[in-house]
Amino acid sequence: MTAYTATVTVRLKSGVLDPEAETTQRSLERLGFELEDLRSADQFEIDLDAEDREDAEDRVTEMTERLLANPTLHDYEITIDEQ
Amino acid sequence: MTAYTATVTVRLKSGVLDPEAETTQRSLERLGFELEDLRSADQFEIDLDAEDREDAEDRVTEMTERLLANPTLHDYEITIDEQ
Repeated sequence: MTAYTATVTVRLKSGVLDPEAETTQRSLERLGFELEDLRSADQFEIDLDAEDREDAEDRVTEMTERLLANPTLHDYEITIDEQ
Repeated sequence: MTAYTATVTVRLKSGVLDPEAETTQRSLERLGFELEDLRSADQFEIDLDAEDREDAEDRVTEMTERLLANPTLHDYEITIDEQ
């Protein structure tokens, strides 16, 4: 078994409203910052022992689809690194 | 002016309790998944026009220190990409 760290980034699909990101953008603008757009995402770093990289990726994809992301609202991206 | 996208990742400092991450880890374990640890982070993607990469990085660092991260609780990481 090898120790891996998976990084899962969960973003709202484009077109889905993100009131928290809008509030953050407006707060930055109120502080005098100039920016064109701000989007927010959730990131999960998962440490796991797996047979190989493919096994780690399969298991983390299943975790993401069952719990971490909602396929109606979110897109996700997974990267796997050996620890 | 050049259009840049900055990615700001805000993590809790190690040692700071993260009840949301613990709940997520326990939920995955209850679903039958095996994992060693789970950490969560917030990610912000900021589009901005700047003179150059250094100007973009300086402004995003200031945004992060003034609003996006709390230096007592968080570590942060900034990457800058040309759009």
